[in-house]
Amino acid sequence: MAKKRSTAITPAYLGRRAEIAAAAARLFGAAGVNPISMEDIAEAVGLAKPSLYHYFKTRDEILYAIHEQTIGFLTRRFIARQAAGALPPERLRGAIGDAFDLVNEMPGFSRVIFEHLRHVSPPFREQIRANQAEYTARIQGIFEDGIASGDFRPIDPHLATLALLGMVNWSHQWYSSSGTASPEQLTEQFFSYFMHGVAAADGDRSTD
Amino acid sequence: MAKKRSTAITPAYLGRRAEIAAAAARLFGAAGVNPISMEDIAEAVGLAKPSLYHYFKTRDEILYAIHEQTIGFLTRRFIARQAAGALPPERLRGAIGDAFDLVNEMPGFSRVIFEHLRHVSPPFREQIRANQAEYTARIQGIFEDGIASGDFRPIDPHLATLALLGMVNWSHQWYSSSGTASPEQLTEQFFSYFMHGVAAADGDRSTD
Repeated sequence: MAKKRSTAITPAYLGRRAEIAAAAARLFGAAGVNPISMEDIAEAVGLAKPSLYHYFKTRDEILYAIHEQTIGFLTRRFIARQAAGALPPERLRGAIGDAFDLVNEMPGFSRVIFEHLRHVSPPFREQIRANQAEYTARIQGIFEDGIASGDFRPIDPHLATLALLGMVNWSHQWYSSSGTASPEQLTEQFFSYFMHGVAAADGDRSTD
Repeated sequence: MAKKRSTAITPAYLGRRAEIAAAAARLFGAAGVNPISMEDIAEAVGLAKPSLYHYFKTRDEILYAIHEQTIGFLTRRFIARQAAGALPPERLRGAIGDAFDLVNEMPGFSRVIFEHLRHVSPPFREQIRANQAEYTARIQGIFEDGIASGDFRPIDPHLATLALLGMVNWSHQWYSSSGTASPEQLTEQFFSYFMHGVAAADGDRSTD
């Protein structure tokens, strides 16, 4: 049996947990046919399996930690922008930027959650869904505020939220940091599609 | 050993294959923690396992059949619209509608492919990716044609394609036929966001 070790929640302990979650996200993100095991994760971070258990008891705990890091990243930035008094169009642009920064700075993280969520055991899965619903409600609030302020037309704020989240979250399927467009360029393009659409202004239409 | 049966590719045989794929899509779509086995699929369609093998030898073959039915559904409708001479905005609206009809009429199908693709063995996976890339190129062609015709402003056709596909494909995460919006309503809303954006026209802005 492994020797019992103290599990005081020190900054070093939390930092090591975050490192393990990041390594696991990379592994899950690159996974092929075979599922990722605790052994795979231990090996990827250079820990013996009993040492890994010091930080995480199960795969589900690691997946939950990966989720917490992604939702924490998005939520902190969302709230900071709101606290700074940004107007709805700027908050919309900011949320789009956050999604591309996430997929750029934390590769694999969001894909892991979207692809593995249904394989996480119910108590963790329910909490992940609740956290996702909370973030969705924050985005919906941008549309509600923007309709009230007259910045947006009277669209359905819930459907607009689903459309926007799809547009940006789908990037976990195609984004690669080696791609030709930077997160900033993607943000400007996607913001412009969603804010102004792709139609030519009436006067622009070519007549050839 | 199971008795050898003839495997003549009759309409009945193909029909039965399609039924099995549909039952498997429902199973995969509802799957929780445990992966779906050939036994689960045989049970869901009321076949003994040797009889299932008469139609499909592996899980991968079934997943590929599910994929073929989804991409076939989308491609047939895309080509018919193009053959009928529809203009780019109408082709764009049509492609959005196809995606919502797919998620409504074939529940589970697209989710299965997106969530299980990385667990499909390489030869099938490569062919699925090639088929998906072909459909993506078709959508990109709508934007290229629409920019050339002056219907769309000179956006980046590839990024616009990724944005559009994300907006509609993400619906496999949230669409439920018991939801409040019909596929037609979703199509009108999403088309309007993507075509004209969510911004209020200048004159609409409230001044309170």
